[in-house]
Amino acid sequence: MKINREVLKSNFPQVESSETDQGKGLPQPPLQKPYSGEASIIDLPPVDGEVIQNGDIYSCFKERRSLRKYTEDSMSLEELAYLLWATQGVDKVVGKRNFATFRPVPSGGARHAFETYLAINRVEGLEKGIYRYLHKDHQLVLVQSGDFLDKVAAAAEEQKFIANAAVVFIWSCFPARCEWRYSVAAPKLILLDAGHVCQNLYLSCQSIGWGTCAVASYDQEKMDELIQVDGQEEFTVYLAPVGKKQ
Amino acid sequence: MKINREVLKSNFPQVESSETDQGKGLPQPPLQKPYSGEASIIDLPPVDGEVIQNGDIYSCFKERRSLRKYTEDSMSLEELAYLLWATQGVDKVVGKRNFATFRPVPSGGARHAFETYLAINRVEGLEKGIYRYLHKDHQLVLVQSGDFLDKVAAAAEEQKFIANAAVVFIWSCFPARCEWRYSVAAPKLILLDAGHVCQNLYLSCQSIGWGTCAVASYDQEKMDELIQVDGQEEFTVYLAPVGKKQ
Repeated sequence: MKINREVLKSNFPQVESSETDQGKGLPQPPLQKPYSGEASIIDLPPVDGEVIQNGDIYSCFKERRSLRKYTEDSMSLEELAYLLWATQGVDKVVGKRNFATFRPVPSGGARHAFETYLAINRVEGLEKGIYRYLHKDHQLVLVQSGDFLDKVAAAAEEQKFIANAAVVFIWSCFPARCEWRYSVAAPKLILLDAGHVCQNLYLSCQSIGWGTCAVASYDQEKMDELIQVDGQEEFTVYLAPVGKKQ
Repeated sequence: MKINREVLKSNFPQVESSETDQGKGLPQPPLQKPYSGEASIIDLPPVDGEVIQNGDIYSCFKERRSLRKYTEDSMSLEELAYLLWATQGVDKVVGKRNFATFRPVPSGGARHAFETYLAINRVEGLEKGIYRYLHKDHQLVLVQSGDFLDKVAAAAEEQKFIANAAVVFIWSCFPARCEWRYSVAAPKLILLDAGHVCQNLYLSCQSIGWGTCAVASYDQEKMDELIQVDGQEEFTVYLAPVGKKQ
């Protein structure tokens, strides 16, 4: 057993910027994963903050707690759209060939290496299933229909409370998006960025009377299989079940 | 050059809980680094949210941007206390021998592996210098007096804007706090947690009309020397200069 503390440091071997994929003039990998033209697409309601019940940031900071007990309530599509926007929504796009996006969360070099998958259990107007958020288009794409909450809980070390969530956020990453610019420094940056994203989920949940509990311990292969990613170029990095407070 | 994507995954070698330091019954490492009885201690004003100008969480999400241009304004001690509390302040302590803390940010297993150092440039009532936040006591301890902003900027790849900040947050980590419970999984968890912390700095800055820009690229040895840590058991993991918006 070797604990790899080195990944926490900024001791990366020097990589000349001319040697990165960006430096070589290669185009950046897509910042939003493409989807099949036959896929089922759901438009999300625009986000204007109207679903917020307690939008006072001081209270949101103060009352933030990890929540593992959820009511049987369903989430509205407006609430879900708000949580998706707060965590990964795109407010502004700049540039063309190598465009960048501005969001409620920062990402080193605006690389935003994530895709957001949702295991939907109880969301008004959505059948149960696995979906993916199209952050650039503020839409959902259906990955597969069905009730997957027990499987998500089983893949997350049998943490049973997960199966009671209304929705589970499952973030995957495409490391190449970040490696394109940062090479060997990418893994550290991606994990820092995943933390930024998840913190906004905590706070946005808090502001609508819902709660979450981040989960970093899961079976990599099982989780990747559930969201139907290859486990090499794209794989699960973090997850967070969301449910209403009792 | 080898890019280590594995650290992003949850593919850790199985460590039986009985084999961790916690499982062996060892006491947890201190959750707050001790300090010399002769050190200079500054009490911070209690935080009640009164310094907040725009506390609407929706606007804070929406308007969050990385800020690299700062005015010459000084920060009040009340504002600094608020940013420190929002990022690492302790709201509740539970347990005794192996106590845990509840804060505005989550940490896997409540391990909170960080110390917060401040390179102070312009904060009312504080001489320039390097300080450390005593999160459990809501105080500052002086590490060393002097003007270190140019050195911080030099250690952060000569990113000159850093030298104009009113204060630079420099987070170190004690990996052992997290390894005590999570063993080989600790590095991933610590980076996710550092992201949670930094996101709250972005949002709390936003709510008082200040701004920040996270920096993950720095010279490890130089930064560790500046905050006077050993680079082995404790070392710098992330930093963020803070200044007022123009």
